Amino acid sequence: MTGLSAIPTPGSTPDLDHLCINTLRFLSVDMVERAKSGHPGLPLGAAPMAYVLWTRYLRHHPREPSWPDRDRFVLSAGHGSALLYALLHVTGYDLPLEELQRFRQWGSRTPGHPEVGHTPGVEVTTGPLGQGFAMGVGLAIAERFLAARFNRPDAVVVDHRTYGIVSDGDLMEGISSEAASLAGRIALGKLVYLYDDNHVSLEGGTNLAFTEDAVARFRAYGWNVLRVEDGNDLAAIDAALASAVGQSERPSLISVRTHLGYGSPVQDTREAHGEPLGAAGTEATKTKLGWPLAPTFLVPEPARTAFAAAIPRGDEWVRAWASRRAALRAADPKLAAEFDAALAGSLPSGWDADLPMFAAKDGPVATRDASSKVLNVLAGRIPTLMGGSADLNPSTKTYLTGAGDFGLDGGNGRNLHFGVREHAMTSIVNGLAMHGGIVPFSATFFCFADYARPGLRIGALMRAKALHIYTHDSIGLGEDGPTHQPVEHLWSLRVMPGMTVIRPGDANETVGAYRVALTRSGPVALVLTRQKLPTLDLPAERLQRGVERGGYVLVESHRAPPDVTLIATGSELALATRAAALLAGEGVAARVVSMPSTTIFDEQTEEYRAATLPPATPKLAVEAGATAGWWKYVGSSGDVIGLDRFGASAPGDVVLANLGFTVEHVVERARRLARRTAR
Amino acid sequence: MTGLSAIPTPGSTPDLDHLCINTLRFLSVDMVERAKSGHPGLPLGAAPMAYVLWTRYLRHHPREPSWPDRDRFVLSAGHGSALLYALLHVTGYDLPLEELQRFRQWGSRTPGHPEVGHTPGVEVTTGPLGQGFAMGVGLAIAERFLAARFNRPDAVVVDHRTYGIVSDGDLMEGISSEAASLAGRIALGKLVYLYDDNHVSLEGGTNLAFTEDAVARFRAYGWNVLRVEDGNDLAAIDAALASAVGQSERPSLISVRTHLGYGSPVQDTREAHGEPLGAAGTEATKTKLGWPLAPTFLVPEPARTAFAAAIPRGDEWVRAWASRRAALRAADPKLAAEFDAALAGSLPSGWDADLPMFAAKDGPVATRDASSKVLNVLAGRIPTLMGGSADLNPSTKTYLTGAGDFGLDGGNGRNLHFGVREHAMTSIVNGLAMHGGIVPFSATFFCFADYARPGLRIGALMRAKALHIYTHDSIGLGEDGPTHQPVEHLWSLRVMPGMTVIRPGDANETVGAYRVALTRSGPVALVLTRQKLPTLDLPAERLQRGVERGGYVLVESHRAPPDVTLIATGSELALATRAAALLAGEGVAARVVSMPSTTIFDEQTEEYRAATLPPATPKLAVEAGATAGWWKYVGSSGDVIGLDRFGASAPGDVVLANLGFTVEHVVERARRLARRTAR
Repeated sequence: MTGLSAIPTPGSTPDLDHLCINTLRFLSVDMVERAKSGHPGLPLGAAPMAYVLWTRYLRHHPREPSWPDRDRFVLSAGHGSALLYALLHVTGYDLPLEELQRFRQWGSRTPGHPEVGHTPGVEVTTGPLGQGFAMGVGLAIAERFLAARFNRPDAVVVDHRTYGIVSDGDLMEGISSEAASLAGRIALGKLVYLYDDNHVSLEGGTNLAFTEDAVARFRAYGWNVLRVEDGNDLAAIDAALASAVGQSERPSLISVRTHLGYGSPVQDTREAHGEPLGAAGTEATKTKLGWPLAPTFLVPEPARTAFAAAIPRGDEWVRAWASRRAALRAADPKLAAEFDAALAGSLPSGWDADLPMFAAKDGPVATRDASSKVLNVLAGRIPTLMGGSADLNPSTKTYLTGAGDFGLDGGNGRNLHFGVREHAMTSIVNGLAMHGGIVPFSATFFCFADYARPGLRIGALMRAKALHIYTHDSIGLGEDGPTHQPVEHLWSLRVMPGMTVIRPGDANETVGAYRVALTRSGPVALVLTRQKLPTLDLPAERLQRGVERGGYVLVESHRAPPDVTLIATGSELALATRAAALLAGEGVAARVVSMPSTTIFDEQTEEYRAATLPPATPKLAVEAGATAGWWKYVGSSGDVIGLDRFGASAPGDVVLANLGFTVEHVVERARRLARRTAR
Repeated sequence: MTGLSAIPTPGSTPDLDHLCINTLRFLSVDMVERAKSGHPGLPLGAAPMAYVLWTRYLRHHPREPSWPDRDRFVLSAGHGSALLYALLHVTGYDLPLEELQRFRQWGSRTPGHPEVGHTPGVEVTTGPLGQGFAMGVGLAIAERFLAARFNRPDAVVVDHRTYGIVSDGDLMEGISSEAASLAGRIALGKLVYLYDDNHVSLEGGTNLAFTEDAVARFRAYGWNVLRVEDGNDLAAIDAALASAVGQSERPSLISVRTHLGYGSPVQDTREAHGEPLGAAGTEATKTKLGWPLAPTFLVPEPARTAFAAAIPRGDEWVRAWASRRAALRAADPKLAAEFDAALAGSLPSGWDADLPMFAAKDGPVATRDASSKVLNVLAGRIPTLMGGSADLNPSTKTYLTGAGDFGLDGGNGRNLHFGVREHAMTSIVNGLAMHGGIVPFSATFFCFADYARPGLRIGALMRAKALHIYTHDSIGLGEDGPTHQPVEHLWSLRVMPGMTVIRPGDANETVGAYRVALTRSGPVALVLTRQKLPTLDLPAERLQRGVERGGYVLVESHRAPPDVTLIATGSELALATRAAALLAGEGVAARVVSMPSTTIFDEQTEEYRAATLPPATPKLAVEAGATAGWWKYVGSSGDVIGLDRFGASAPGDVVLANLGFTVEHVVERARRLARRTAR
């Protein structure tokens, strides 16, 4: 009972333990009954392990849910949210009983699945299976990185664990395999997952589709795997947790055999998973487990008292931590200040002081290369900027030179090697962001953002501050062909709420894109070329600052009003400027609007937008991607040069030319548009 | 040497084997050199295993690449395409040397990654890692299902294996874990993968991120795992293949230790992966492996002769198969006809004879329930309609009643249980489609189409005929909240080239949607509600047939031209019809256009489109999803009621009402639009 010796337990007798566990169970059941919607099965089966974890291991403080050195808890099986809300309520978080009674109702703090920002104590948003598993890996990486950076022998300011409850559904999702293999590789010894092994999933028994030996599988990943044969055996759960916590070499998976809907008439059946038990079922379950039928939402006084021990315990931990932080301040004020700033999420002053300016005379630069330069400059100024790619650093150009590697040979550097695992990478980066203290980035080819999409969405929903660097952004990448050439990706990401997409048009806009990305809330996708682009021969400052408005007039027409306005992004921006020059030669007055980010442009005032894209001027958008979203900007009288088909394998310039991305084609379509409207 | 006894080997001496293998190696190297782009590393290391497989095991016929009972070969590591093209060329497929010399050039049959339809002998499109792995699982499922359905003891017309070469990158991708776990569960004994274990990935050594024990991991999935310590040891490769082929209880993974870029100066380094060796590197490699420096693209006569044995062997196999098919025709003409029709991809006559008509008086029906009815009717008429859901059958309503389960208790029924594995599900369904003979479907919640996106894209690129049934299509699903509520998904799929998205507005449109889906080429996403919708009180036939045009006038305004046109899809269609009725009461003439599929509507003539959505009429689109793509249809003077934010957890009707999806709101916005334009 190492756990008990480490932390005072609230339950001194088995009866009290039992009472507390049933409190969690029936708060959950009553929540689901009241809402007439939800998942009672997981709470009934997993309450004992949650109880042992929360009362004997988890270091947290209900009154200070954002205490930086708290242990993190992730309910990866987010459909069991009622159990989490019950835990938060009884231990004293700001989640009154009335909120439990408004489970799954409009405006409540108890949404159907746990959502960051709605409920104090919820660390990450979960529900889509596997996301929590991978985000937990990110939380654990953040802890180890920050500990290595900020701890001093006499001032250990970062020292916590990441715990989670994961389900068979989590383990079936590929993202968990990716994250688990990586966690094994980098030996995340302070990551401990309880696996609610209940043998039932939504369709029926897990034997329908899931008969693998999960224990052997996780051992193959290099995990410390423990097994508890009876999910109600508190001593066994406690011993397993003690053993997991007692080592720090490997991540731990504690497989706990539980029973879905334990105690209910539908125990061990799929009916227990996602529907209320109903009045009769609830009565039968309460009777079976010795719980009073009334009142509902009962928290017996002894249980309330026992759970309430979380607060004085939390006080003590937070006090002790505050004194360690004070020690750090005394020993190394500069480091302490850096620590405070990192935790506050502020960028160090002067973070953008060294950002480069690019000049046309220095020749063409791929925006991935400009990005590499900027990223490395920023890494020099922002000590907690860290990230990596899905096995593509040499191509995405995202290695931070001299910043060391993370998890290799015991190093805790800032370059992460995610392997060919875009999905886990993205959700791990979400975890880094949600931990606090880190400015994280991911990187891969833009086409493979598809693999990461559920992670991108959860990140957007959480407003996780993460930078996703996507290179090889169009058919312009060339020979690798349509499997690697993004077409629909720009619009498919632009339509995601909360996601900012920026596709800079040259090296200077790339600098501007980073400036925006680092100061904006929520995730940002930077979309960059593989191929070289001319650095536009215009004031660099104008390009860099223009990005801040999302869209701006880059080249004014030689007379006002223009006959036509060209709108372009990324590699098509140079095309548009060259076309405008040729059009001017023919006497057609063309304005060029650079639109690196429709997301940001849409946030500008109507006045600004109308001044940039005057309603009366015919407009032509040019982008090597799907056309669908551009009609909003060009209007009924406008035109779009885009790509509503897959690309092809050939040298990039050949593909671009054959699919209509030539200056001649832009001139021709612009001319036609100007004339049509003039008529 | 079981393989040798089974199939005559072309190489009688080690020297000839060596010559043949080097032929494959240097054709690949020369292709990459000529293209100045590509991946020489894999062909150099994996040529021996490919050689043994192709010459001693793979049953195929270069002159009849679509012989239905051929073994399937999947190069999951699609970046090694040069090796596949070399194999296809030397064994006699219609891929002349000139095509190898045009590797990665516009219009060639040798694109950067293998693409179905461009090159005879390419079974599936690969490149994005993990896709081939999962599609191979689909190919093997198809084989087993068709064998169970069509073979007779005296007429075995389906009996082939699925082979593949997979890489470390494939094994890192989560989709492979999902597919492998499922393949183990359903014991796909005729699936054999060679794992090119070369210890190097793009960033460097695989030890950067991939140190798991892959052998133990695949054993945990229930696979038969074999190991070859030297990738140049043909006897060991042969013995492993013989052992894999000699059993049929479990899928096999043969882990072969190879050397990336074998024989080259950059052997075993990441530089060998994805760049040409260069003139000096090529010369050094040829010298080291005893190959003449000139001419390039050399196929020595003895090697050509040896490889050419594939054709007479193939003739023999195809002849033997033809006689088995004749035996089936003699023994069971009806079954034989069904077999022929399935292979031809034709639907049985009368396939749509029993499709239901729904009536308004029968009350509201969720489109997922209408779908369930239709799907089961179709299953009764189409014996090779098969599929399943990612552990959501009870919610997606996609179980085929009475059609049996696949892979459970030795059964070969038509219901697949994919587990919580949306990504593998989708790519497996692609494999089913690409095998031929099957009409496959997948199913999950629409939100989780995100997990499947790379599979959807590969399917669209291959024009794989698969049906993806997505229920729980909007915020209308209610309590599960924003993690489960699609918002951006409609437009993010509509912008994917080759993907047809259909969101029917009531039960009868759902019938129409299936009618279209089954007769259309390429993948179709059916987007369906969880909540009940009124069955519109209009002629059922009109709704069912209307879907075929993508968009059509559902309700004409009481006078022409209309003051306003309402465009709606899915659950918003009933809202629009009710709004139109209310507007009529106010004297505003509103037309209602149902637009179940913008994909199909866009294919109609300009005339039809202009008649349906007259340019001069103000238009209001109503859809509970992102607005971005609707501006193309409503134009500059139009308006969109949509959702550019995440949803919320509450009962569905509350969420819909609070976010603007009420008849009052539609009336108000339509009225405003009609007046604004009238002014």
